[in-house]
Amino acid sequence: MDHVTGLERFSLNSATTKHWPLPELVAGCVEAGVGLVGLWRENLDALGPDRTAALVRDAGLRVTSLCRGGFFTSPDWFDDNRRAIDEAATLGAPELVLVSGGLPPGSRDLDGAREQIAAAIGTLVPHALAAGVRLAIEPLHPMFASDRCAVSTLGQALDLAERYPVAAVGVVVDTYHVWWDPDVWRQIARAGERIACFQLADWITPLPAGVLLGRGLPGEGCVELGRFAAAVDAAGYTGPVEVEVFHEAVWNRPGREVLADAVRGYRAALGASVH
Amino acid sequence: MDHVTGLERFSLNSATTKHWPLPELVAGCVEAGVGLVGLWRENLDALGPDRTAALVRDAGLRVTSLCRGGFFTSPDWFDDNRRAIDEAATLGAPELVLVSGGLPPGSRDLDGAREQIAAAIGTLVPHALAAGVRLAIEPLHPMFASDRCAVSTLGQALDLAERYPVAAVGVVVDTYHVWWDPDVWRQIARAGERIACFQLADWITPLPAGVLLGRGLPGEGCVELGRFAAAVDAAGYTGPVEVEVFHEAVWNRPGREVLADAVRGYRAALGASVH
Repeated sequence: MDHVTGLERFSLNSATTKHWPLPELVAGCVEAGVGLVGLWRENLDALGPDRTAALVRDAGLRVTSLCRGGFFTSPDWFDDNRRAIDEAATLGAPELVLVSGGLPPGSRDLDGAREQIAAAIGTLVPHALAAGVRLAIEPLHPMFASDRCAVSTLGQALDLAERYPVAAVGVVVDTYHVWWDPDVWRQIARAGERIACFQLADWITPLPAGVLLGRGLPGEGCVELGRFAAAVDAAGYTGPVEVEVFHEAVWNRPGREVLADAVRGYRAALGASVH
Repeated sequence: MDHVTGLERFSLNSATTKHWPLPELVAGCVEAGVGLVGLWRENLDALGPDRTAALVRDAGLRVTSLCRGGFFTSPDWFDDNRRAIDEAATLGAPELVLVSGGLPPGSRDLDGAREQIAAAIGTLVPHALAAGVRLAIEPLHPMFASDRCAVSTLGQALDLAERYPVAAVGVVVDTYHVWWDPDVWRQIARAGERIACFQLADWITPLPAGVLLGRGLPGEGCVELGRFAAAVDAAGYTGPVEVEVFHEAVWNRPGREVLADAVRGYRAALGASVH
């Protein structure tokens, strides 16, 4: 990586440029001096895990994380998560991001869903350790608690992770999901080497219907992104900073432009904070 | 109140039937055996505070709370909140619900906004005590942290309230806002006599654009409403249970029907829990 660009830790999460085909995304990153990418399992659909891994590797890029495992409250969670771990290993992604799942259809048993998630993670730990892939529990914003992820705070994610070795289970700090939490600074300090991935997205309003696609590029919203970057650094985190933004309007723009804006926003927000 | 109906603690918050004119709402409540109503300041626009108070009182109803003071990060918060306290006193509403406000325009200083809220509440305490109206801090769901209320958890609300006498500052427990919080049961127990109001609304998805009008009537969603009612009871709360639902589709139905559904949902959800 080129130290002049200051992009040593910048990683483009492919969900930010959802409609950019992977070969073009890889070329675009190389051209922009970006050496790190976060991938989603749907990125493997076209070429399969092995050829996708080769495509990325041959361009000199590294995969920082694979999204996603999880959805532990669905019936087929076990086989699907074993496959996800294997795919992460094939890609050389050290972290598999877990979106743990919400309430099963018709259920009101939030505690039960949380227990189910805890049990499922425990079940996967041996396989993750054997594959050399860390399970990275991502707390999602509480507005997703019923339908996507019953793990709603960093504190909860750490309570789950700390039952297992650091090499087996970590947590994701995504600014979009945790920025509101008055306890988040204490939890980031507590997290230390459990921090498996640090993701940047900004909070903007009004939220769109369904609320999934309402994220802003870094700098567009109201989150103290630099403060978060400084906090994870202070906790000892030296890993990638993934920009991960889901927004219809962002997706409809050319990937190259979005990447340039993501880099610009990253630099503006974190320039003074990331070392 | 008629003990046979089991509605001694049921209160209709007028925001649930937003387009029902107050005289009709009052008549509809009397007809349905409902003796308690939660009002909003906009309900006073037509008749003014004194005549509104007389309308409600003459029908034999009691006002359980007035919504809302707050928005402490706006420039005119002081005068507006003094007026709100006075209006609550005129109505005989023992509790003024506070929606504390989010970030000022362009600001990213969430801690600063929270400090501003704390200071404003302290400033209002003497006036509230003199008026015999309790300031009821309502934590809002974290999805409103930037634009409506930077107080996002019951724990935060209690941290603010406990600086002042119980008679001056309490908290609102609204199931819609706090249902996701893994710490909420402990915080309800901690709250005890600080619980100024207990409000019922259900969590349904998908959320609509803007997310304000996405609530479900009791029983339509995934919240363990009976468990919440039992928890506030166990904490010593003996006050009203307000049904407060904001939803475009609910607003477009006749008030009488909505009230009947609210009563039905209340009974189904809480029948075994509220004493």
